[in-house]
Amino acid sequence: MLYLIGLGLGDAKDITVKGLEVVRRCSRVYLEAYTSVLTVGKEALEEFYGRKLILADREEVEQEADNILKDADINEVAFLVVGDPFGATTHSDLILRATKLGIPYRVIHNASIMNAVGCCGLQLYNFGETVSIVFWTDTWRPESFFDKAEKNRQNGMHTLCLLDIKVKEQSLENLMKGRKIYEPPRYMSVNQAAQQLLEIVQNRREGGEEPAVTEETLCVGLARVGAEDQKIAAGTLQQMCTVDLGGPLHSLIITGGSMHPLEMEMLSLFSIPEQH
Amino acid sequence: MLYLIGLGLGDAKDITVKGLEVVRRCSRVYLEAYTSVLTVGKEALEEFYGRKLILADREEVEQEADNILKDADINEVAFLVVGDPFGATTHSDLILRATKLGIPYRVIHNASIMNAVGCCGLQLYNFGETVSIVFWTDTWRPESFFDKAEKNRQNGMHTLCLLDIKVKEQSLENLMKGRKIYEPPRYMSVNQAAQQLLEIVQNRREGGEEPAVTEETLCVGLARVGAEDQKIAAGTLQQMCTVDLGGPLHSLIITGGSMHPLEMEMLSLFSIPEQH
Repeated sequence: MLYLIGLGLGDAKDITVKGLEVVRRCSRVYLEAYTSVLTVGKEALEEFYGRKLILADREEVEQEADNILKDADINEVAFLVVGDPFGATTHSDLILRATKLGIPYRVIHNASIMNAVGCCGLQLYNFGETVSIVFWTDTWRPESFFDKAEKNRQNGMHTLCLLDIKVKEQSLENLMKGRKIYEPPRYMSVNQAAQQLLEIVQNRREGGEEPAVTEETLCVGLARVGAEDQKIAAGTLQQMCTVDLGGPLHSLIITGGSMHPLEMEMLSLFSIPEQH
Repeated sequence: MLYLIGLGLGDAKDITVKGLEVVRRCSRVYLEAYTSVLTVGKEALEEFYGRKLILADREEVEQEADNILKDADINEVAFLVVGDPFGATTHSDLILRATKLGIPYRVIHNASIMNAVGCCGLQLYNFGETVSIVFWTDTWRPESFFDKAEKNRQNGMHTLCLLDIKVKEQSLENLMKGRKIYEPPRYMSVNQAAQQLLEIVQNRREGGEEPAVTEETLCVGLARVGAEDQKIAAGTLQQMCTVDLGGPLHSLIITGGSMHPLEMEMLSLFSIPEQH
């Protein structure tokens, strides 16, 4: 049996009681380590679960899924995922491989950033397509996420922007030379995301267009959702460039045009104070 | 301190370890009882938590929130919600009241149907606005959810349809006479939802319009998501009228037009067998 178990968003104790029971009895326990992070590290999880965890990085999951699934038809194997196994990243691939090998699977769900963002008071009902904002490079500056956010806003829908995470990335040089030396992890902040968005706003204006998302669009920055020290700030996209939300992970919401009074009232709890 | 604690979707053990610790130490524990149900009842929860639960029905939450919040500035009070506190129903109202009374609050998130539907393999990214399909009566037959699903589909987005729940409803007679006698709870099935949708398709055709959602549109029916005996079936909207998914709660997804190959492959695991 393959178990896909969501760990939730905060720390070791955000696993469900059911999930913890399964983790403690499985013969091997993998921790998916490339798309998201908890506020605690692998060691804290190992201590609380009372189990050694095997880190499964991107290569492991995509190229060596067979290792994970080895003997899973006669043993119990757990694959732990920060958030929910079907949240921002789906693990369909692992399930399809298991199914082809005749290995049954079960999912133990948990909170995902995809539903926990509701804590800012915006109704999940009213979210349109979710977008990912990627780190720009000198030569690669995609803007497609902006088009989607604009379309959502034109339809009165909020847009959840998931912000880029670079874990275990190799420099071009190390990649070319086949050296497994990795760059320090990078997590996009709300400030960085807002700055990229504002650059796109400028580009659009220079192209003679008045975008639906502008400096004045009401946004919500969220950091460490679900953790003790989570932070939420509501303000304009311009304000998102400078608001201090502390460490990762960050997410950004671009609100839809029209809002329910209850949404507005909730957001007011998180308003960025006026600067004087 | 007011704690809003998500219980997840299956049974008593779907609470998080953190949530369980809080429940066990709070001076009063309320269970929100009107918008959703677990596969187990209040007694099973009480036994597992080792705590008496106070049922908070709709009247309680909307009209008697003050009882829930009484002394919560000096005591710890827990408010338990099936799924996530900010899932399909938000509890902003209770939070706003608490804040006005100077009572701090914390949220302990869990899986919600809003993210757990990802288990069918459709990517949460690609969902548009969520809709609610309500039980029609002889005189009230709204179609607005259909317009939203059509709009989503035209934009290539999937639509999660939450199906109506009638708990603690009074008959008109009992309501008029002020008698607190309640009808048996009713949960809309995927079959009922599909039948209402097909009636709308007919209505639209009679109005001379060819709708974007038809008998042949690929849909996914889900029952008891997150529970041991969850069921998922993928097929046409026509097939959704007769597929047998067992007891509540049910949800329905109307897929967007274009799908990722991985989404198709996952859905094929749940295809309704051809009838011969």
